[in-house]
Amino acid sequence: MPRVVRGTPRTPLDIVDGLADLGVATVHESQGRKGLLDIRLRPIFPARIAGTALTCEVAPGDNWTIHVAVEQASPGDILVVTPTSPCDDGYVGDLLAESLMAHGVRGLVIDAGVRDVATLTEMGFAVWSKNIGSQGTVKGTPGNVQTPIVIANQLVYPGDVIVADIDGVVAVRREDAAAVLEKGREREAGETAKRERFRAGELGLDMYGMREALTAKGLVYEDWVE
Amino acid sequence: MPRVVRGTPRTPLDIVDGLADLGVATVHESQGRKGLLDIRLRPIFPARIAGTALTCEVAPGDNWTIHVAVEQASPGDILVVTPTSPCDDGYVGDLLAESLMAHGVRGLVIDAGVRDVATLTEMGFAVWSKNIGSQGTVKGTPGNVQTPIVIANQLVYPGDVIVADIDGVVAVRREDAAAVLEKGREREAGETAKRERFRAGELGLDMYGMREALTAKGLVYEDWVE
Amino acid sequence: MPRVVRGTPRTPLDIVDGLADLGVATVHESQGRKGLLDIRLRPIFPARIAGTALTCEVAPGDNWTIHVAVEQASPGDILVVTPTSPCDDGYVGDLLAESLMAHGVRGLVIDAGVRDVATLTEMGFAVWSKNIGSQGTVKGTPGNVQTPIVIANQLVYPGDVIVADIDGVVAVRREDAAAVLEKGREREAGETAKRERFRAGELGLDMYGMREALTAKGLVYEDWVE
Amino acid sequence: MPRVVRGTPRTPLDIVDGLADLGVATVHESQGRKGLLDIRLRPIFPARIAGTALTCEVAPGDNWTIHVAVEQASPGDILVVTPTSPCDDGYVGDLLAESLMAHGVRGLVIDAGVRDVATLTEMGFAVWSKNIGSQGTVKGTPGNVQTPIVIANQLVYPGDVIVADIDGVVAVRREDAAAVLEKGREREAGETAKRERFRAGELGLDMYGMREALTAKGLVYEDWVE
Amino acid sequence: MPRVVRGTPRTPLDIVDGLADLGVATVHESQGRKGLLDIRLRPIFPARIAGTALTCEVAPGDNWTIHVAVEQASPGDILVVTPTSPCDDGYVGDLLAESLMAHGVRGLVIDAGVRDVATLTEMGFAVWSKNIGSQGTVKGTPGNVQTPIVIANQLVYPGDVIVADIDGVVAVRREDAAAVLEKGREREAGETAKRERFRAGELGLDMYGMREALTAKGLVYEDWVE
Amino acid sequence: MPRVVRGTPRTPLDIVDGLADLGVATVHESQGRKGLLDIRLRPIFPARIAGTALTCEVAPGDNWTIHVAVEQASPGDILVVTPTSPCDDGYVGDLLAESLMAHGVRGLVIDAGVRDVATLTEMGFAVWSKNIGSQGTVKGTPGNVQTPIVIANQLVYPGDVIVADIDGVVAVRREDAAAVLEKGREREAGETAKRERFRAGELGLDMYGMREALTAKGLVYEDWVE
Repeated sequence: MPRVVRGTPRTPLDIVDGLADLGVATVHESQGRKGLLDIRLRPIFPARIAGTALTCEVAPGDNWTIHVAVEQASPGDILVVTPTSPCDDGYVGDLLAESLMAHGVRGLVIDAGVRDVATLTEMGFAVWSKNIGSQGTVKGTPGNVQTPIVIANQLVYPGDVIVADIDGVVAVRREDAAAVLEKGREREAGETAKRERFRAGELGLDMYGMREALTAKGLVYEDWVE
Repeated sequence: MPRVVRGTPRTPLDIVDGLADLGVATVHESQGRKGLLDIRLRPIFPARIAGTALTCEVAPGDNWTIHVAVEQASPGDILVVTPTSPCDDGYVGDLLAESLMAHGVRGLVIDAGVRDVATLTEMGFAVWSKNIGSQGTVKGTPGNVQTPIVIANQLVYPGDVIVADIDGVVAVRREDAAAVLEKGREREAGETAKRERFRAGELGLDMYGMREALTAKGLVYEDWVE
Repeated sequence: MPRVVRGTPRTPLDIVDGLADLGVATVHESQGRKGLLDIRLRPIFPARIAGTALTCEVAPGDNWTIHVAVEQASPGDILVVTPTSPCDDGYVGDLLAESLMAHGVRGLVIDAGVRDVATLTEMGFAVWSKNIGSQGTVKGTPGNVQTPIVIANQLVYPGDVIVADIDGVVAVRREDAAAVLEKGREREAGETAKRERFRAGELGLDMYGMREALTAKGLVYEDWVE
Repeated sequence: MPRVVRGTPRTPLDIVDGLADLGVATVHESQGRKGLLDIRLRPIFPARIAGTALTCEVAPGDNWTIHVAVEQASPGDILVVTPTSPCDDGYVGDLLAESLMAHGVRGLVIDAGVRDVATLTEMGFAVWSKNIGSQGTVKGTPGNVQTPIVIANQLVYPGDVIVADIDGVVAVRREDAAAVLEKGREREAGETAKRERFRAGELGLDMYGMREALTAKGLVYEDWVE
Repeated sequence: MPRVVRGTPRTPLDIVDGLADLGVATVHESQGRKGLLDIRLRPIFPARIAGTALTCEVAPGDNWTIHVAVEQASPGDILVVTPTSPCDDGYVGDLLAESLMAHGVRGLVIDAGVRDVATLTEMGFAVWSKNIGSQGTVKGTPGNVQTPIVIANQLVYPGDVIVADIDGVVAVRREDAAAVLEKGREREAGETAKRERFRAGELGLDMYGMREALTAKGLVYEDWVE
Repeated sequence: MPRVVRGTPRTPLDIVDGLADLGVATVHESQGRKGLLDIRLRPIFPARIAGTALTCEVAPGDNWTIHVAVEQASPGDILVVTPTSPCDDGYVGDLLAESLMAHGVRGLVIDAGVRDVATLTEMGFAVWSKNIGSQGTVKGTPGNVQTPIVIANQLVYPGDVIVADIDGVVAVRREDAAAVLEKGREREAGETAKRERFRAGELGLDMYGMREALTAKGLVYEDWVE
């Protein structure tokens, strides 16, 4: 039975915005390398955003439920759409994007297609999608809004944080978000220092003390002979 | 027997140019959602063009027939190339592009590869292709020029309209083109009005009167419980 | 047994730089259409570079060997990385890129993923990869450095020339590089002349004298009948 | 506007059955190497059948139109189904197969999924499909029956001959079928003779007199040197 | 932190076995068309099994955790393995299969590769995998056993029911299993009756009373004109 | 310049036959996990063979060179064919298979398509191919015979051993073959003993003494809590 769950809690936006600053790669590392959506989701233009997941599960070739989802939107959300079977159709075009932006939605992550990409780019409406596709959709089968969904091989709950940039898309559980932000900021500080040392020419072999372990694993050095 | 058909009729260019203004998504909707080429055809740089189809069916890895096609070109054409079996080779590079432009060809749609992409981009020669590939081709087997072809799962007749932009590629039958243009312009006018309403925050649920139908299909609303 | 070969010879950089000027498509043609890496390797931003191959064979999901490779780098190298089984993980991010640049490495060709792509782009570190992916890697299994490798269906020896641009990636044997450069320059000169003739409207059919051969192969011309 | 065309002509079944005897590879060669459907269509069990095309164009994830098609079936038909955008759903299961068999349909060619494959195999209902998939479909959007369709990159008219075996699927135009059958039988006779000569050890190089042409194309023989 | 959860509850085996009798397509329909794993998972030989999920999340190219999982096995389990990033390596061969069978494991569902397929087939050890691949794995990074996992786009909890046959693989929540079994049996009974009517030639159009709805949706019938 | 190298040495057939007995997975492990061809090459029917590589590099869609290769065949060879760019065409059918068998060729490994698969199966001519495809080829461009080639991401020299079974295809260097056979036989002996212990229920955790290392890597055990 298709359903809409109202009043689901959301991660506070100050935490969300902090995670956006860190970016996908750092957030992913900071939460123990989990939550990464499949690499088939790619941005239609380079951007880095984060928001709270407004989840939406749709039938293949049917975007009816996205209209239902708009009403549940809250400023700071990212619409997260997964079809119940693989589909390349263009579920969202410029009209729906206008509607989503009007309700404060920051962007779209969809395991299917989008269309009107030139207009979406002018509007600055950020999208990560499986493909670009002009094939339109029907309105015949309602799906679910604000229920837990699996998208691109990851489980996402309503209100979880979605961070997306040119590296891809990662989901962070609402209850983990604050801790991940903290770890991410520590990690970033550490990386700046390391980066300076790398820039000065120091080798990772020495910085991380890898030489002994490599030898123990059997790595040998030999000189080239014609 | 390979053949070239001379004197095939073409859609008038004023209609073609009108369709270019509408773009792929609108044209596709306006003709009843048909004619869309497979999404694997992608632009090498962002552009929006329309032209009359100069059709060309080639052997895999063999671009001989494209030289034959240039002679049949007319200003306003788009060269449309399909191989008889899937092939990633780079059938067209900067020399052939120069030759095509010299004969008024506006761009290339090819279900195979192109090469010299940096130069093609500088030249402003718009291409939609399956891939970018430097593998050259031979000249051993002639194919067909200006015959009906199937490309990327769509049937295209010589002189049909091809509209291509960042959303993909769509074909419009020559005999349907004027009507599709008219419908497309009406559609576009309607979309502008709708877009204003969406921008003002109106919901699609209300604008399209969907609530009753969704309830009839079983959609239920419930409140979140921890 | 994993190993590092030290002191492998490299193609002189003046030859390498000459090949960069020619670009992938011309180099590929000039050496008899061989050495082209699979088209799945694509640039993260448009660039044209050439360098000497610093080869690296890695375990899936394990970037330990890349740290080993940095120590073997020489200014003018391009790091060439192939996994022993297909993998989409992001083997190289901004830290490793910093380290590689500090040792004079001009870019990266990898049949796997890269991450931190926004930063790599700001740094101007050119990469051709199978995909963009934030999934991190472990450091558990050493591989080989500066041994002959097969990457994206091509055999590459340490010190071979790698030329990469928006058309793809091609490898040139160290011992062939000077001859290929010479042929490439001749080819380029010939192409300029041809290009002028094409721009003036001359047909390839006439320029290359193809009409007779096409007729011999059975090509027929007919006029369109409704 | 979705439509059903009644009373479309069909290729006579004696010709159809003759083409089944020849098989896909021979039929394809005999009609000049055209009409071959994309290789993604594979049989669910090894079989060789031919029939007259009962064409059906469906919406993605919607099998309503297949019920419409059954009423138009005639003994000797093969149901040929193409979705308007790519879809993996299982459009046909054991119930629909039962219905199709009851109306004399010999098999199914579908550029999408089928389910209940174990039962279909027991029933001997031959299917060529893009995939096996249990995802069910809805009944919300009617499509077209017995109109010309493009399936797996080939144009098929109602009543055309479909030949399918383990090598794939080929379509033959109704008006060409008799001629193709005749050529195919001649071809088959010739192949039997050639096969005997090959079995006796004769080389293709000699049988087809290829040596001179190969030399003219630059083929050289050399002896191995360590 | 990698972890093993001991003592997770399992669906009773009488329910599991009942679901096996129904098969994947019926079970999937009976639970409202959810839980279907991606169609890329295919059987190495035709079989129909059901079991309780013994879940296992592994690093790419690393099968260490599978040895850990064996100790947690209980008769009636199916081992369900997902890598943290896509991998084609052969995680399981005849030795591990022997060990799994010795502990009562009924089969393997893995979103990666298996090897020794001829031996596994002789042993009757049923496997659904993404591919067959001989590339071996290392033992360097532990993963998780008996934690909730996402595999092939579906969430699976330890002790859930896995049903697998030639149509694919479906997961049923432990708490839903009894109800799904009941609905499935009702469904099956209904299908037998329908199947008889289809065999007798009754049309779905009449059996399901579709004619009016189709007309309402605009379906028209016309007669063929040359 | 296309060329044929005559008189290349071959691995002795007693070693070749020994490797066939071991099978792909064991041979691959025994030579240090190298030489495995890409998993896209699959058998047309289940078989296990080994032979000496008769190498052949062909143009896309052009099987002329295969006729050249037949003359170079020696009993015990396996024909190994790679196209210079990816191609799905059916390079080999029943006639060429007849010719190959008449010259003692044991099978075919091809990174492209084959056709007449029903007949090849009846003949018992074993084939590993990328796909089954009826699209025929031309005879216009000679390639190379008995030169080193890269096929499916592996380098193969004439006379190397090719082992192929349902697990895939592996290449063994001629100079390594005897040593690999010896190691493989030792490995096989060891596996038989291990397999007995697994069958008796012993855990890999104990047999390989893994518990301590897993704990050191951070693996923890916890008990399930609702």
